[in-house]
Amino acid sequence: MEKLYVIKIGGNIVDDPTVLTACLKAFAALEGHAILVHGGGKLATQLANQLGVKQQLIEGRRVTDAETLKIVTMVYGGLINKSIVAQLQAEGVPALGITGADANLIKAHKRVHPTVDYGFVGDIDEVNENAFIDLLQKGTKLVMAPLTHDGKGQILNTNADTIAQSIATALSKHYDVHLIYGFEKEGVLLNVQDPASVLGKMNFEKYQQLKSQNIIVEGMLPKLDNAFKALEQGVHSVIIGKGEKLNELIQGTAGTTIQI
Amino acid sequence: MEKLYVIKIGGNIVDDPTVLTACLKAFAALEGHAILVHGGGKLATQLANQLGVKQQLIEGRRVTDAETLKIVTMVYGGLINKSIVAQLQAEGVPALGITGADANLIKAHKRVHPTVDYGFVGDIDEVNENAFIDLLQKGTKLVMAPLTHDGKGQILNTNADTIAQSIATALSKHYDVHLIYGFEKEGVLLNVQDPASVLGKMNFEKYQQLKSQNIIVEGMLPKLDNAFKALEQGVHSVIIGKGEKLNELIQGTAGTTIQI
Repeated sequence: MEKLYVIKIGGNIVDDPTVLTACLKAFAALEGHAILVHGGGKLATQLANQLGVKQQLIEGRRVTDAETLKIVTMVYGGLINKSIVAQLQAEGVPALGITGADANLIKAHKRVHPTVDYGFVGDIDEVNENAFIDLLQKGTKLVMAPLTHDGKGQILNTNADTIAQSIATALSKHYDVHLIYGFEKEGVLLNVQDPASVLGKMNFEKYQQLKSQNIIVEGMLPKLDNAFKALEQGVHSVIIGKGEKLNELIQGTAGTTIQI
Repeated sequence: MEKLYVIKIGGNIVDDPTVLTACLKAFAALEGHAILVHGGGKLATQLANQLGVKQQLIEGRRVTDAETLKIVTMVYGGLINKSIVAQLQAEGVPALGITGADANLIKAHKRVHPTVDYGFVGDIDEVNENAFIDLLQKGTKLVMAPLTHDGKGQILNTNADTIAQSIATALSKHYDVHLIYGFEKEGVLLNVQDPASVLGKMNFEKYQQLKSQNIIVEGMLPKLDNAFKALEQGVHSVIIGKGEKLNELIQGTAGTTIQI
C-alpha cells in the first residue's frame, strides 16, 4: 500500500507565521500522499471581537451561532486555507484547498445534545473515500479547513482533530496511513515540566501504566484515547509532537510515536 | 469535442439569495462540464465597513490594500465560495470550490501601472489547462472565486469577468466552450429603457453597426469587446443576459448570443 500522511496542525502553529512557514516547508518536502488539516487559531476569535459577535463557550466548547459560522467559514475556509495553499505553491507543491463540503468529502449532522445547543457544529457521518482517493491519486496534496456540510446546503463547524482522525481511519483501508498531530508540546512527557522528558515510543500497555501512575493526565487523555482508537481501526501509526518539528516527526526523530 | 460551460455570475446575483438559488439550480441541472465563476457582491464592502477598512476607488476600480485583500480572501474564497458549494451539494452536484491558487490553476502578477498602485490586484499570466482538465474530467463541477496567486505565495484579487474569459479562452483548445455572462440586464438592448428590446443574436458586423449608431454605449462596450476577443481566440459562443435566467441563457431562449 502507498503511504498517506494525515497531518493536523493546531491553532498555535497557524497563528505563528515563522512556525507555520517551517511546517509548510516540511509538508512540501514530504514524499507520498499527504493531507494537511489545519485548525483555526485566534484569527476567528479576533474577527468575532472586531465585529462585536459574542463568543459563547459551554464546558470549554465554542457555540457556533449563525454569525460565528459565517466568521469561521471566512477565516478557516478562506483566509487561512488559501494563504496556506498559496504558500505551498511557492514551494512548488500544487496543493488544493478543501473543506468537507467540497466534492462532498465529509458529511456531518448538526450536533444533537440533550441539554446544550451547540449551534452549527457538525458531528461526522461519512468520509467520502473515493472522492479523497480521486484527488490524492493525481499527486495533489490536500489542505483541509475544519468545516463539513450536512448535504442539505448547510456548512458545519467541525473539530479539526476529529476530522484528521476520521480521514485517517476511513483511508486506512486504501493507504498505509500515518496520522501526525502537531501541537505545542514535544509529545508525551514523563515530566510535564520538562520538554526533554519526551517518550519516543508508546504502546497501549505503556499508556495504561502511565495513566495508572497519573503521569499522563487531563488534556492528553482524550488525544491519546483517540490515537489508540485510530490505531485499532487500521491506522498504521500516530505521532504527536511539536508542530514546528514536522520534519522530525515524520522521520520519527522527534515526538512520540504511538503504536498498538 | 465535449461541451464546457464557463459561467460568470455577477455580484447582484450573489447578493440575492432567491436569484442565486435559481441560478444554482440551473447550474446543477447543466449537462456537460461546467465552471461557475462568481463575483464578490456587496458582502466584501459591508465587511470592510464593519471593520473600518476604508475602500479606495481610483477611476472606478477598487484598490486592494493588505487589509482589503484579507477581506476579499475571506468573503470570496471562504463565505461565498463555500456557501455556493454546499448549496450545490444539496442539489446532488459534487462541486469543488477553488481559487486560482488551488492546484496552481491561475497564475498572475501584481498589476503594474505607471501612476496608480492598485495594491494586491492580479493581472493573469497563465491558466493551467492541464490542472483544469484533470479536475473537470472527473465530472466535478467547479466553483471559482475571483482570486489568483503569483506563484511566490501571494494571493491576488482578480476581476471575475477576466477570469471567466481567460479560462474560456485557454480551454477552447480542449472543449467546445460556451461562455455565459449572467448580469443584471436582459442582454444587448436596442433600447436601454426597454428590457423587451433584447437582441437575440449578434455578430461582429451587427456590433460595429450598433456601435456606430450609438445604440451600444459605455458599460457594455468593454464586455462586448472582450466577448469578440474570446470568440476570435476559439470560444464557440458568448451569451450575455439576466443571471436568474441561466436556464434560458443556456438554451439560447433568453439573452444575447454572440458569435463571430
